[in-house]
Amino acid sequence: MKIIVLKFGGTSVGSINRIKKVARIIKSYLKKYKVIVLSSAMSGTTNNLINMSQKISKNFPDNEYDTLVSAGEQISCSLLSGQLLTTGTKARSWMAWQIPILTEGKHKYSRIKYINKTKVLKFLRSGGVPIIAGFQGVDKNLNITTIGRGGSDSSAIMVAKFFKAERCVIYTDVEGVYTTDPNKLNSAKKIKDISYEEMLEMASLGSKVMQPHSIQDARLNRINVEVKSSFVDKGGTLITKRRNIINNKIITGISSTDNDAKVTLLGVKDRPGIAASIFKPLSENSINVDMVVQNISSDGKETDLTFTIKSFDLTKTKKIINKNKNIIFKRMTFDKNVSKVSIIGVGMVTTPGVTFRMFQALAKKEINIQVISTSEIKISVLIKRTKVTKAIKALHKEFNLEK
Amino acid sequence: MKIIVLKFGGTSVGSINRIKKVARIIKSYLKKYKVIVLSSAMSGTTNNLINMSQKISKNFPDNEYDTLVSAGEQISCSLLSGQLLTTGTKARSWMAWQIPILTEGKHKYSRIKYINKTKVLKFLRSGGVPIIAGFQGVDKNLNITTIGRGGSDSSAIMVAKFFKAERCVIYTDVEGVYTTDPNKLNSAKKIKDISYEEMLEMASLGSKVMQPHSIQDARLNRINVEVKSSFVDKGGTLITKRRNIINNKIITGISSTDNDAKVTLLGVKDRPGIAASIFKPLSENSINVDMVVQNISSDGKETDLTFTIKSFDLTKTKKIINKNKNIIFKRMTFDKNVSKVSIIGVGMVTTPGVTFRMFQALAKKEINIQVISTSEIKISVLIKRTKVTKAIKALHKEFNLEK
Repeated sequence: MKIIVLKFGGTSVGSINRIKKVARIIKSYLKKYKVIVLSSAMSGTTNNLINMSQKISKNFPDNEYDTLVSAGEQISCSLLSGQLLTTGTKARSWMAWQIPILTEGKHKYSRIKYINKTKVLKFLRSGGVPIIAGFQGVDKNLNITTIGRGGSDSSAIMVAKFFKAERCVIYTDVEGVYTTDPNKLNSAKKIKDISYEEMLEMASLGSKVMQPHSIQDARLNRINVEVKSSFVDKGGTLITKRRNIINNKIITGISSTDNDAKVTLLGVKDRPGIAASIFKPLSENSINVDMVVQNISSDGKETDLTFTIKSFDLTKTKKIINKNKNIIFKRMTFDKNVSKVSIIGVGMVTTPGVTFRMFQALAKKEINIQVISTSEIKISVLIKRTKVTKAIKALHKEFNLEK
Repeated sequence: MKIIVLKFGGTSVGSINRIKKVARIIKSYLKKYKVIVLSSAMSGTTNNLINMSQKISKNFPDNEYDTLVSAGEQISCSLLSGQLLTTGTKARSWMAWQIPILTEGKHKYSRIKYINKTKVLKFLRSGGVPIIAGFQGVDKNLNITTIGRGGSDSSAIMVAKFFKAERCVIYTDVEGVYTTDPNKLNSAKKIKDISYEEMLEMASLGSKVMQPHSIQDARLNRINVEVKSSFVDKGGTLITKRRNIINNKIITGISSTDNDAKVTLLGVKDRPGIAASIFKPLSENSINVDMVVQNISSDGKETDLTFTIKSFDLTKTKKIINKNKNIIFKRMTFDKNVSKVSIIGVGMVTTPGVTFRMFQALAKKEINIQVISTSEIKISVLIKRTKVTKAIKALHKEFNLEK
């Protein structure tokens, strides 16, 4: 029994006409596969529900929040199943508690622990298409829970894992993953296949196709994930193991951010452990420090320290540093007009000179690099925000991403 | 432990402000009672969901219909519970499957069979207010069901039964049951208490406060039901056993219908069983025949037969009668401009002359009676629809209902 999991996001089931279209997509798989469907709530529904809860209280209780918002998937799944049934395809909707999809962890941030396959498998074998509510679960006390991180994408990937599906197709409103943001560069190309690791870097660095946590779930469980559009009938992007990828490119994609801020502490009194003294209270306040550069202090007494954070954390960061009695510094400066541009590719591990080519390409365009950070498969640089488009264009060309 | 069940209808929880008001009403009972709440969906929600299903198919599958519409109560209950929680009252929402409220029968028309009290009782004892989703249940295979007849009112009454509640209060958008429709007669008075039997006659004859099936459930289980408004703080109407009612009135109320049609078969060839021959095929087609009058045939050969049906059944009725080969008649006439006016009261059993007073009061106003039917506690007459208001006014005065 070859099983495929199809997941439809909110815009894909955003209206009755869209639901009819989705039913046709589902039917197109039935000759070749046993199909399990995961559906999000119709776009808008979840936000409406959250808005109502916010009118009651900004601190609406997490357990009732989960019960409230999971009504959204109940609506979309029963409508989709009804559409399939009335057009001759055996189907039925399954809420998480009916399967059950067991979760653990706190309300709003639960994780799928176990999926009971018995009933769904029986239904699949009888020729039916199960339409499973994404985003929701049930805990061992029969409380409704929701899956915070990754949401319906994570539900789909966990269903693919438990049912040993050949593939998990994430239908959404974009055609796939691009070499860079098509809104920033016209010549951006759709990527045919990409490794989990590259996709993780692309996602966490600003490509919004899939949430990092669900990519991580796919990577850990070696699930082949295809991201494609439910609006146009075109091939998407396959996210898979490195070894499955036939690709002679050094760089797979370029991403950029637009909500970074740079903080510089000048004349910091240097002593062992000074960096920890600065960053510990930030971390304790859930402020994520990203890039860091510390100048070597020539006399061993004073140093300058620069780091980046999300710009919405800037006010909080300033307050924490000014209150910090464990550090002594002369002056603090900050800059919200910065962006991080990254080149990503598993190919760079085996290719010397990538860093040099990146820096040279930027230098040619007179783009000044403020901070640098690297990993095995990516190089990130911090530059002036106004230069981002220019930088992406230069790098896209340098690494032959326009083919 | 004195338990009270409070049920809130769709308009009572129709907005966030209404939900806040309902939370205050609930709190007002907490000093005296352990409170169990039943809530309908926010007004408009259910209709929106049904409209969406209709856009998919006029024959939207019943099982998915139940899953779809029961999302409405999931939303209202979690919001109401969230409101109580954030204003300091321990509460939680309960979907039918979480309790469970077990139903039997077909989808869309299920009946509550059993309610497991364990978890809800434990929560009540701990000082919590359970907010239970009305209108929904779950069958033994964990399918979501809905309670067709009586809906959330029936849920409330069955909860009151299983939890041995002292009273079931139905909060709605009217102040109670009136002696007659206040839209038709200004001087209509709110009834303080009314017997189940009278209320059943009032309901099935056109007073829309509660559905007949939920009144019947209340009667069978001897549940004291109070109907009152969640919009104004005034006493409502108590529906209870006859013996609880202190009332010196002969007539409790007057009701009228506005969707009847009269059918007359002239010159029907008379023979034993002729009425059965006419009515059996109507009944088989779910056409409800209400009032019947058959003239005595002077020669024993021909008779005229008159009966009433709902006007929306008229076309179907004509077709069935014309196709009926077991009856011979000369001519069929019909009249859609008729209404049934009824006087209702347990007092009439012990009071002679009620019929005479009714007929005389109508005669005085020159209102012609076309058909009569009576039961132990009601007398109904069929009259011209244009005369309904005049008739109600005359009868209301005749039986001193304006006090």
